Amino acid sequence: MPLLVMKFGGTSVADLARIANAAQKVQREVERGYDVIVIVSAMSGKTNEMVGWVEQTSKLYDAREYDAVVASGENVTAGLMALRLQEMGIPARSWQGWQVPINTTSAHGSARFVSIPRENIDAKFAEGFKVAVVAGFQGLSAEGRITTLGRGGSDTTAVAFAAAFGAERCDIYTDVDGVYTTDPRVSSKARKLDKIAFEEMLELASLGAKVLQTRSVELAMRYKVRLRVLSSFEDTDETSGTLVCDEEEIMESKVVSGVAFSRDEAKMTLVTVEDRPGVASSIFGTLADAGVNVDMIVQNISEKNYGTHTGAVTDMTFSVPTNQVARAQKAMEDAKAAGKLAYDDLIADTDVAKVSVVGIGMRSQVGVAAKTFKALAAENINIKVIATSEIKISVLIDRKYMELAVQALHDAFELDKA
Amino acid sequence: MPLLVMKFGGTSVADLARIANAAQKVQREVERGYDVIVIVSAMSGKTNEMVGWVEQTSKLYDAREYDAVVASGENVTAGLMALRLQEMGIPARSWQGWQVPINTTSAHGSARFVSIPRENIDAKFAEGFKVAVVAGFQGLSAEGRITTLGRGGSDTTAVAFAAAFGAERCDIYTDVDGVYTTDPRVSSKARKLDKIAFEEMLELASLGAKVLQTRSVELAMRYKVRLRVLSSFEDTDETSGTLVCDEEEIMESKVVSGVAFSRDEAKMTLVTVEDRPGVASSIFGTLADAGVNVDMIVQNISEKNYGTHTGAVTDMTFSVPTNQVARAQKAMEDAKAAGKLAYDDLIADTDVAKVSVVGIGMRSQVGVAAKTFKALAAENINIKVIATSEIKISVLIDRKYMELAVQALHDAFELDKA
Repeated sequence: MPLLVMKFGGTSVADLARIANAAQKVQREVERGYDVIVIVSAMSGKTNEMVGWVEQTSKLYDAREYDAVVASGENVTAGLMALRLQEMGIPARSWQGWQVPINTTSAHGSARFVSIPRENIDAKFAEGFKVAVVAGFQGLSAEGRITTLGRGGSDTTAVAFAAAFGAERCDIYTDVDGVYTTDPRVSSKARKLDKIAFEEMLELASLGAKVLQTRSVELAMRYKVRLRVLSSFEDTDETSGTLVCDEEEIMESKVVSGVAFSRDEAKMTLVTVEDRPGVASSIFGTLADAGVNVDMIVQNISEKNYGTHTGAVTDMTFSVPTNQVARAQKAMEDAKAAGKLAYDDLIADTDVAKVSVVGIGMRSQVGVAAKTFKALAAENINIKVIATSEIKISVLIDRKYMELAVQALHDAFELDKA
Repeated sequence: MPLLVMKFGGTSVADLARIANAAQKVQREVERGYDVIVIVSAMSGKTNEMVGWVEQTSKLYDAREYDAVVASGENVTAGLMALRLQEMGIPARSWQGWQVPINTTSAHGSARFVSIPRENIDAKFAEGFKVAVVAGFQGLSAEGRITTLGRGGSDTTAVAFAAAFGAERCDIYTDVDGVYTTDPRVSSKARKLDKIAFEEMLELASLGAKVLQTRSVELAMRYKVRLRVLSSFEDTDETSGTLVCDEEEIMESKVVSGVAFSRDEAKMTLVTVEDRPGVASSIFGTLADAGVNVDMIVQNISEKNYGTHTGAVTDMTFSVPTNQVARAQKAMEDAKAAGKLAYDDLIADTDVAKVSVVGIGMRSQVGVAAKTFKALAAENINIKVIATSEIKISVLIDRKYMELAVQALHDAFELDKA
């Protein structure tokens, strides 16, 4: 029997009417001949309510107990979904993480999968059950405690089940109808993509197109799980939404697939640091120890005998999330005070945004960077930092130009055309 | 290390402030040197909310899924209580039913205990944990599914743990401060009892003094678990509340311990049924098959050759819960139509109440019945049905006299005096 994994997020199961709506989508796949594994999130708001209770009870809470409390939201939805399916005449059974069991590491609050044995659920399918409704976001540690995977973990649960059960596809039902070339709120010309490669989706997801959790895309890419993102709130069929898949499945890849952006980015520059081996390691090691997520890193060219410095010196620029600027500053100042690091000044610019063009076709195409810079120059937008990868070109610019830059790049690469 | 079981019901853990209050009571016992097993209910209202969701989703719901959904309320409270205790510096761990495991039958919604192995919790106590917070009301079937024990099941969980772990006492914290000689709302002279025998408590509980679930008292009696009922909302010490215990622990037992009553009782009379072996069995077998809970049964003396009847005939009177009258009538009429039962008429009187005097001392004392009837006669209260057991005398009377009867009996047996 071919098998499908279907995942419904919190807004898709927010109340009984929406659970019933989701159940209809499951019914349609069962009628098409699939066995279905449904992964559900907690009803929207429930997880936050419980997190609030935990945090009010204990500031430095025990993550084992946090997980035990917070995982219960998914259990409720799983049972209700199974009941709804039964009511529609579909043999369904709910599964909590420990019942499968979904074996994870003991890293409470951010556990990772160890194994998902198929025996128990396969036995139920063999008995004639058509649907297994699995509580997302949770698992079981070797110590027998409930673990959670961290926010967005239900997407990852869905992909892990699709991999473990060899599912034909993993459909992620959410409140958007697919992946767009850019955010439609920023450019009215944004177009929904029918297909996108895993690598592109990873860059878009981590750059702010918050459709799929990055970790779930990574897992899908590793196990070649075909992922489809589509809307819970529209009539959908086999061609709906966006398929995230191996690039080989995408016949005619465009050079650029999308334009991503992030307002939540600050630029920091350490002025005049020594240019010698080990300095970069010392700076970014210190930031990592302080829990700062550094994104872009740019080292300017080295100057000799600058000011009072006798050796080679350079400036080091990097970007961090806006809300981590203070933490990064403190870490640098502490390191300087402790004599571990020398620099003349630390400049933070929180009034920037990051804009990126992403496309797998870039790898075999020259001139993408040139075209990007030209499009920005034509709008008189000054580029503050540039960083590139194989399939991405990112720039930091003044925040006020962000929307203009996105539209200009979207036009330049003709993303509105299929 | 001596061990105590403490149980907190839904109103005692209704919000974070009340959970904190309950945790203080646990702390006090830990400071006295006890290891403590805490049994918690769901925050009040949560179970009803989930039951509502289940019933709206599926009228004839699958009890396995009902249990999976509804049991989650206790899991949340258990985790929050463990966190609160940790915050107070007390090493505590939460336990869901499957983690202990609390092995039960597979009778979902009304499961019964099979075994509660001590190994896992004992191992944690040995590690230095002082408190095990256990989610009440739930267990695990041999099939690996979550079961629930039915309403009030958390009391039963508490008693079962007290028996399994050889607890010195099982303290049931609730919203009343003990067991009274009668309902204080009916008689201002009602007095709190310091001690009451299991047998008396059973009669009082099943007769409407809704302090403890009947099943929990039965279990406590079987395993000689000393049960204490006391208030969550008052300062309490070792002498607070009411101790429910073996009669041997009660030095000077009074003849009568309390006066119970129930408004929810209807009197039904089958007029002129044959008086021959097998008739009673046929009537009450039919009612049992229809799910009617018959309480009192009285058979009037037999008359020969009454009316058109040639054999011996009699009237059969019994009492049922008011909301089961229609079901009882239909069962009797169906049996008559099917030729399985013959009677001339079926009279239902829903305007009655049951009043009972209960006391273990009755067994060795004569004249209690006479004193009961005399007290009612002095108030001109007509007795419609009488039923007695070793430690109880119950009467059905017109409902409008119920409060008067309770007060008269409370006075007659001087229950206001210690």
